Amino acid sequence: MPLNPARFLSDLHSLRQFGKDGHGVRRRAFTPEDLAARDWLAERITAAGLEPHFDPAGNLFGLAPGTSLLLGSHSDTQPEGGWLDGALGVIAALEVARASVEGGGPPISIVSFQDEEGRFGALTGSSIWSGKLDLDQADSLTDADGLSFAKARETLGARAGAFVDPARFSGFLELHIEQGPTLDQSGEAIGVVTGIVGSRQLQVTVEGQQNHAGTTPMALRRDAFTMVTRFATALEQAFANVVTPQTVWTIGQLQLHPNAPSIVPGRAVFTLQWRDVESDRLERMDQFINDVLNTVAAESGCNVTVERLRQMLEPVPMDHRMQDALSEAAEKIAPDRWRSMPSGALHDASNVAGLMPVGMLFVPSINGVSHTFDEDTAEDDLVLGLRVLADGAERASRALSR
Amino acid sequence: MPLNPARFLSDLHSLRQFGKDGHGVRRRAFTPEDLAARDWLAERITAAGLEPHFDPAGNLFGLAPGTSLLLGSHSDTQPEGGWLDGALGVIAALEVARASVEGGGPPISIVSFQDEEGRFGALTGSSIWSGKLDLDQADSLTDADGLSFAKARETLGARAGAFVDPARFSGFLELHIEQGPTLDQSGEAIGVVTGIVGSRQLQVTVEGQQNHAGTTPMALRRDAFTMVTRFATALEQAFANVVTPQTVWTIGQLQLHPNAPSIVPGRAVFTLQWRDVESDRLERMDQFINDVLNTVAAESGCNVTVERLRQMLEPVPMDHRMQDALSEAAEKIAPDRWRSMPSGALHDASNVAGLMPVGMLFVPSINGVSHTFDEDTAEDDLVLGLRVLADGAERASRALSR
Repeated sequence: MPLNPARFLSDLHSLRQFGKDGHGVRRRAFTPEDLAARDWLAERITAAGLEPHFDPAGNLFGLAPGTSLLLGSHSDTQPEGGWLDGALGVIAALEVARASVEGGGPPISIVSFQDEEGRFGALTGSSIWSGKLDLDQADSLTDADGLSFAKARETLGARAGAFVDPARFSGFLELHIEQGPTLDQSGEAIGVVTGIVGSRQLQVTVEGQQNHAGTTPMALRRDAFTMVTRFATALEQAFANVVTPQTVWTIGQLQLHPNAPSIVPGRAVFTLQWRDVESDRLERMDQFINDVLNTVAAESGCNVTVERLRQMLEPVPMDHRMQDALSEAAEKIAPDRWRSMPSGALHDASNVAGLMPVGMLFVPSINGVSHTFDEDTAEDDLVLGLRVLADGAERASRALSR
Repeated sequence: MPLNPARFLSDLHSLRQFGKDGHGVRRRAFTPEDLAARDWLAERITAAGLEPHFDPAGNLFGLAPGTSLLLGSHSDTQPEGGWLDGALGVIAALEVARASVEGGGPPISIVSFQDEEGRFGALTGSSIWSGKLDLDQADSLTDADGLSFAKARETLGARAGAFVDPARFSGFLELHIEQGPTLDQSGEAIGVVTGIVGSRQLQVTVEGQQNHAGTTPMALRRDAFTMVTRFATALEQAFANVVTPQTVWTIGQLQLHPNAPSIVPGRAVFTLQWRDVESDRLERMDQFINDVLNTVAAESGCNVTVERLRQMLEPVPMDHRMQDALSEAAEKIAPDRWRSMPSGALHDASNVAGLMPVGMLFVPSINGVSHTFDEDTAEDDLVLGLRVLADGAERASRALSR
């Protein structure tokens, strides 16, 4: 497959111009910048010898005839987005599909999903296409300013056609920046994703007793914040035997009441979120959390109430044939410079996995940052990612047709 | 000294009517309620055979002729105050002085200091009288609505006379509710105060690294909140060998940034306050705090900066002759039902201690609460406090005249 890295990088920088702001990009779903970018992409799709096709949700496909492998990601961004986030996976897909047409490779279609970054929902376009979200339900979603998805997608006008039948695709591959520090810190160039982690989240309310910080002896206090610190410490110890190096948990939000220097906190409300690629482990962690909460609350003289904030997100394992195809490609093109790893962030691939075999590749994020103007990846790594994606797509096409 | 407990309780309930709100009282310094209460008290002072005298700061004295012992507290309240807080000490002083006039006891003057509760400053009236705060400086202090102390004290009108010469008093005794749970929990009736604790306070800013809570492995995090929980735990252990059961420390205020469930906290700002009756211990705790902060910050990969928020308040020991006089009175009147203890809260006695020998007595606060409408003390304990104050005043008069 005669890849053209210069053409790939040129297209990537062309897409960057739509909504460019300094080093980063502002290209929210259905803004003029987003629609202009999609129109530009549709032209590039045509030029590549594929058929451009918008569906009613704003997802833009570049269709190869017959049954094909689907490659892609999304081209919308966060309000203050990086230039590579979903764009890399879309333009890499374009180059692989184009090179395959030119070189007589396997049939490859591409896609840029709409509103992955959640202006209206979360992974909105791929949720609708994969049947997880009805278009009617989606239409009633609103952005932060109250604009509905229904109103927003009217801007598609005559572009919008029918939904593309997923059955025409044999599988899906997504190249994406890691959005974390693992590859950047290890010096490796490629991550073959084993699965997209599931997550659970609780909101815990600790009720102690509000007291004067001068007149209340330590022994008579029921300090809600002290309870939280003891819980966090005890949880770390309790988790030691259940977690892997890839398991994560976070207390990211905390509010003390009344939150004054001279008052023993009477109440603390905090969130605890944990993520792993295995459902069993998420469940065992849930039990440890409950045990530790109850033990520490009793020791601290506090009451705790627990509220589940979000629907649980179950882990999504990547297809083994796809992992094998990508691993073989990585070992050929970047020998000893790749690893298998989970994805800690959500991706459109999570939704598509309900429809067909799915695989994902990561390239490093410099300093591990994403969803900021500073987001970046070394040019060599972008090209290496393109090459592994192309080689992996050829291997996947063969594996899936067996 | 022929004490009249019924008259004492009656006066206490009369004072309660000024600003009464449910079980509690609203009687901020220099409000119409406060001034009306002071005018009522001036009448009771005259009726008791003492000379009422307002000073320019609004402090109201009831003066005995010649050299006398001074008893009292304050009659202003918090915005939502308890009915006893300072009022108990003022009315108990009135009853003791009155009984002493009637029974030919030692000469006793009384005082109700102004703005102990800090509408304008903190312990404003006694700070001015004791020379710690110039009247000119005080005049520029403002309340939460921007009203100046200068403007507020204009409401004194013709009441205001000269400052009373502190040299006419041989010593000062203050009866107060404990405002903490120690006596209530132990079932004791009287606390003889050993000293008013000093306090120190820091604001600590922890700078870690803000990261995505899904994509950042635990081993690569520099989580500002995890640093705080480790610090709190390590500090408790480090303090074990330096503190007494009366030493207290509090993390009462904490703010995480960006404070979102899915983001590893990049910054945490918290206050740490500690109190003790001994300056040496406050200083040693300060050193432990610095050591533990530096150790934990290094282990957690975070940077800490420390800011001293307030002027340090040095501990104020009570005069030993006063403590002896009050202890002997307590042992006589409430044998085995009293203890020596520090005051964890500030009182006017802190300021007066710069002028003359000072002693303080506590009676229990039901459930340890204060600065709330619910604040209360059993009637038996109020009367017991009155009796110990009267007996202690006689003993103190003798001790100080030696």
